[in-house]
Amino acid sequence: MKKLEAGVLVVGCGTVGGATVEALLGQTDIIQARSGVSLRLTGIVSRTFASARRHGFPETLFRESLESALEDPDTDIVVETVGGVETGEAIIRAAIAAGKHVVTANKALIAERGTQLFETARKAGVTIAFEASCAGGIPIVRSLYDGLTANRIDALFGIVNGTSNYILSRMVQEGSSYREALAEAQREGYAEADPTLDVDGTDSVHKLAILSRLAFGVACHPDDIPTVGIDSLNSEDIAHAARLGYVVKLLAVAQRHDNGVSLFVRPAFISREHPLAWVSGPFNAVSVYGTVTGHTMYYGRGAGGAPTAGSIIADLVSIARGSYAPVFEHSCAWDQHDAVAVVPASRLAHRYYLRMLVDDTPGTLARITRILSDHEISIASVMQAESDESTPPKPVQVVITLHRTEESKLSAPLEKITALDAVKQGPAPITIIDEHPE
Amino acid sequence: MKKLEAGVLVVGCGTVGGATVEALLGQTDIIQARSGVSLRLTGIVSRTFASARRHGFPETLFRESLESALEDPDTDIVVETVGGVETGEAIIRAAIAAGKHVVTANKALIAERGTQLFETARKAGVTIAFEASCAGGIPIVRSLYDGLTANRIDALFGIVNGTSNYILSRMVQEGSSYREALAEAQREGYAEADPTLDVDGTDSVHKLAILSRLAFGVACHPDDIPTVGIDSLNSEDIAHAARLGYVVKLLAVAQRHDNGVSLFVRPAFISREHPLAWVSGPFNAVSVYGTVTGHTMYYGRGAGGAPTAGSIIADLVSIARGSYAPVFEHSCAWDQHDAVAVVPASRLAHRYYLRMLVDDTPGTLARITRILSDHEISIASVMQAESDESTPPKPVQVVITLHRTEESKLSAPLEKITALDAVKQGPAPITIIDEHPE
Repeated sequence: MKKLEAGVLVVGCGTVGGATVEALLGQTDIIQARSGVSLRLTGIVSRTFASARRHGFPETLFRESLESALEDPDTDIVVETVGGVETGEAIIRAAIAAGKHVVTANKALIAERGTQLFETARKAGVTIAFEASCAGGIPIVRSLYDGLTANRIDALFGIVNGTSNYILSRMVQEGSSYREALAEAQREGYAEADPTLDVDGTDSVHKLAILSRLAFGVACHPDDIPTVGIDSLNSEDIAHAARLGYVVKLLAVAQRHDNGVSLFVRPAFISREHPLAWVSGPFNAVSVYGTVTGHTMYYGRGAGGAPTAGSIIADLVSIARGSYAPVFEHSCAWDQHDAVAVVPASRLAHRYYLRMLVDDTPGTLARITRILSDHEISIASVMQAESDESTPPKPVQVVITLHRTEESKLSAPLEKITALDAVKQGPAPITIIDEHPE
Repeated sequence: MKKLEAGVLVVGCGTVGGATVEALLGQTDIIQARSGVSLRLTGIVSRTFASARRHGFPETLFRESLESALEDPDTDIVVETVGGVETGEAIIRAAIAAGKHVVTANKALIAERGTQLFETARKAGVTIAFEASCAGGIPIVRSLYDGLTANRIDALFGIVNGTSNYILSRMVQEGSSYREALAEAQREGYAEADPTLDVDGTDSVHKLAILSRLAFGVACHPDDIPTVGIDSLNSEDIAHAARLGYVVKLLAVAQRHDNGVSLFVRPAFISREHPLAWVSGPFNAVSVYGTVTGHTMYYGRGAGGAPTAGSIIADLVSIARGSYAPVFEHSCAWDQHDAVAVVPASRLAHRYYLRMLVDDTPGTLARITRILSDHEISIASVMQAESDESTPPKPVQVVITLHRTEESKLSAPLEKITALDAVKQGPAPITIIDEHPE
């Protein structure tokens, strides 16, 4: 590849692929003026070209066969936007075998098989860049491998799923139920018809696996990261959070401990004073805590065609400039590094919020608090709503916050509380995230 | 220079220089593990070594003479942390003449003489990196030249002076006066004994000049950027801003228009819904609006030894990796680009807030609003506080917000209003910043 210019083959022409092609057809002057790099679109590979035709992309660029498109010596870099672990891997391995660099937005693939793919690419003398796999248009991958290289990273807190954040923001701002907020997100185009992978935390966990690998060197298959989605959240919890000075966010959290790094994705309470609490609607943000730089946060659109295409273009420029090869050579040689140990979530200590529905009978609250103290769990605050004097009396809400408690110690007492006759709905604990000390 | 290792001479051993030396003595293992780059400290140049001795740095590293230190073939990169336009330039020119790369935190120098210095460096085959010159530990310079290369940048809003932001945050949160908040900032170490360059906007304007050059290609000497500091702000303005749904921030603003780019630094009202409104205390943040990526924001510590040293180390790593040369070659070839035109601030249209003190006499408000309408200035809202029935009556506050008005059209009517007998204190307009459309 001649330096400062590159031929680019785009594989896949959906939301992200289409936006990438648009940028490569319409914005090359701007890209060249800003970076000195001349990017040429050499072809588009698509299954049906239906979307490519809708966009009005020139048919002379349509390539029916990936195999023959990869033979084009004018193509230096292949952009994979098809997605899917198996399909994505097949495309990328074919590109590597043809001696092409790769830029991908495929988070599931990089999270699950990045280590092996990167090794294959390195041995073939090409690179794989993946800024677009995490948090759309936010330059968080390069901040970890470039801007923050001075730091041992001690913690990373991310809001990395725009669908979930949009739904939670609606629940906070409008007092909507989860179902209402989801329906609104679907109407506004912020949630798919089947939103499962977004709201159950799967999408967030893929991004956490990639970012944590870069930040901490921790090797963790996404399936092994404890994950709770937002679908279990209740609008009562949102309201209690506000009363206590918190906001509920779906957080992807990685933290360094003496014996390794802990990782989880779950809805959690975060202080209204923390910058992540302000991130609303479909926006994403990642807070990183480094030993030298302290707290930095990166905010922007975490999904959507154009922002994700922006990250793909940035990677194309870095590869064409020759800036990326030395980064990939070291920072993505994941097979060459000793993996950092994973600390099980059960061993973590957090503060917790508990909400339960109980009959308003004498002694119930005493029995609940007694169970907690018998298990040496320290209560920080208790709130029991006043009963409404109706006959028969309705169950009342009890909200308890706990001082720092090891997660594994919670299950036994919470089971006992749930088993009490007077408890109509037992507590599902929600983690309260403390600000990471700088 | 052998790739992936570099010898580093640190010139200056104050807050930033000292923190850089500390990182180079204590963190090289982390830096190497994260980046693959081995950085070796080859020497420290200081006027007195008093601070270097206080830090306990090894005396074997002390170099009395910059000239002889530059002869050391083991030094590949010189870090300039002395500051001052003349002094800094002399050090950097000596380093370039000796064939060394340069990393600097010197914002005044880069803002005023970056173009010529970069040209000299380019001709000598070396690079100058300056992430540390803007917003301390926040990787905003590299986001502009790397992460956002796909974008034509349309607007940049920055809170880039931590001292001013700390003072304004105290005024908002505690209702303090400017003087009280400044004294508190000095006690807390967030303001110098002489805070002039921070609170009068000079520091912000240096950063704006650098960031705008990278973002828009606009060449503007900092002296030519209209600048208002926070020292004229009144706690009444802070309170009225809150009532109207705004927060007062010292903003560095650059915006693209059809005929060029406008630049200014001034205290301004920004909507409480905008992420910059949340940035409190000594933190900095920069919002960037790009055509492809949309709105991204970068948040972190904008000053202080360690965060600034973090940016210096990131630049050292980029240079040693070979990633920076192709960036510098193009994105910092400021002498090679056609400079973009500057649109005078007087030609900009904004919404405005006006506060004045008037005698509570019949017809005063009518006269004021009449003057505005005679000048075809459209009023968005009026608030006159109820008078307190004291005898003699005290002047009352009148707050008026204006619809979008060209700045040049304001001075004549505001002079007339100030000249009214009933007006005890005339209005000093404060700009209301609209969210940049995405």
